[in-house]
Amino acid sequence: KPRLSINKDIILTPPENFAPVINQIYRSSFPQPTNFAFLTKLKLKSVLCLIPEEYPEIHTNFFQNEGIKLFQLGMSGNKEPFVKIPHDLITEAIKIVLDPKNQPILIHCNRGKHRTGCLVGVLRRLQKWSLTIIFDEYRKFAAPKERPMDQQFIELYDETELLNYAEENQLLPLKWNY
Amino acid sequence: KPRLSINKDIILTPPENFAPVINQIYRSSFPQPTNFAFLTKLKLKSVLCLIPEEYPEIHTNFFQNEGIKLFQLGMSGNKEPFVKIPHDLITEAIKIVLDPKNQPILIHCNRGKHRTGCLVGVLRRLQKWSLTIIFDEYRKFAAPKERPMDQQFIELYDETELLNYAEENQLLPLKWNY
Repeated sequence: KPRLSINKDIILTPPENFAPVINQIYRSSFPQPTNFAFLTKLKLKSVLCLIPEEYPEIHTNFFQNEGIKLFQLGMSGNKEPFVKIPHDLITEAIKIVLDPKNQPILIHCNRGKHRTGCLVGVLRRLQKWSLTIIFDEYRKFAAPKERPMDQQFIELYDETELLNYAEENQLLPLKWNY
Repeated sequence: KPRLSINKDIILTPPENFAPVINQIYRSSFPQPTNFAFLTKLKLKSVLCLIPEEYPEIHTNFFQNEGIKLFQLGMSGNKEPFVKIPHDLITEAIKIVLDPKNQPILIHCNRGKHRTGCLVGVLRRLQKWSLTIIFDEYRKFAAPKERPMDQQFIELYDETELLNYAEENQLLPLKWNY
């Protein structure tokens, strides 16, 4: 059968490395204006940006028009051998992500591989996933630039403060919606 | 700081290639008993199996105890060069997946790469994603065994019957929960 013609105006373009993490927590690379039509479908309440650079004006206008709240916890990018994911910023980031008032929420950095990957890895630690599967998922999104030091950060992350905070605020366990 | 001791009894082990697709539609490789504790957290209503082989008894017992409904649309596995994904079975599979009465639902085959990858690719076609991003996602899960013929199946899949069915049953557009 002939394939129906595609109306290219209605094709949606998610950002690279876009995926749902759990329920209405999403991840991606740095979103561009070509992705805005897709992003509106997510009905985002918040966006959490993990890079330190300022958004271009076209982005802040879009977020403003959509009523999307911006959180920014900037972590330096890749300048190996000086790459270090900061424990305390990841802790603050998780608190933002777990808060139901901020969901639906999109987490992004630049490529959606390393900073985002570390954050999602820590979320999976809180979900009690095995390190094997946490690292498998990390590598899916980081390939071909997997960093053992990211995986080690995830493995050794001290969740004490987060567990206390989550208990006070009834944020864990993180449950799959049904 | 010293890392807290892990109580290995409470570590959850998702199946390999597990991921949410959209809302309460999930994908994975063939789940094993070691994954059952994790699967109960998903509160599945249904499981859609894309391989033709029968489940072992330990699986059917688990599904029965959890009140999970089983759908099976068996498609042959890899016997290249005779690999062919059947259009009509994919169509029936999508109808099952889109039905809200069957969700939360887990889609799986053997490795969660090819048969599952084709089904999710067609779902993304219905979501109007660009082929570029559809294929990116396909490759994430199929690597290192990506099949161009799977991608071509997704690209050339004739969605006419599905669109008609979905319109009659108000199943599209598939909306992200919020």
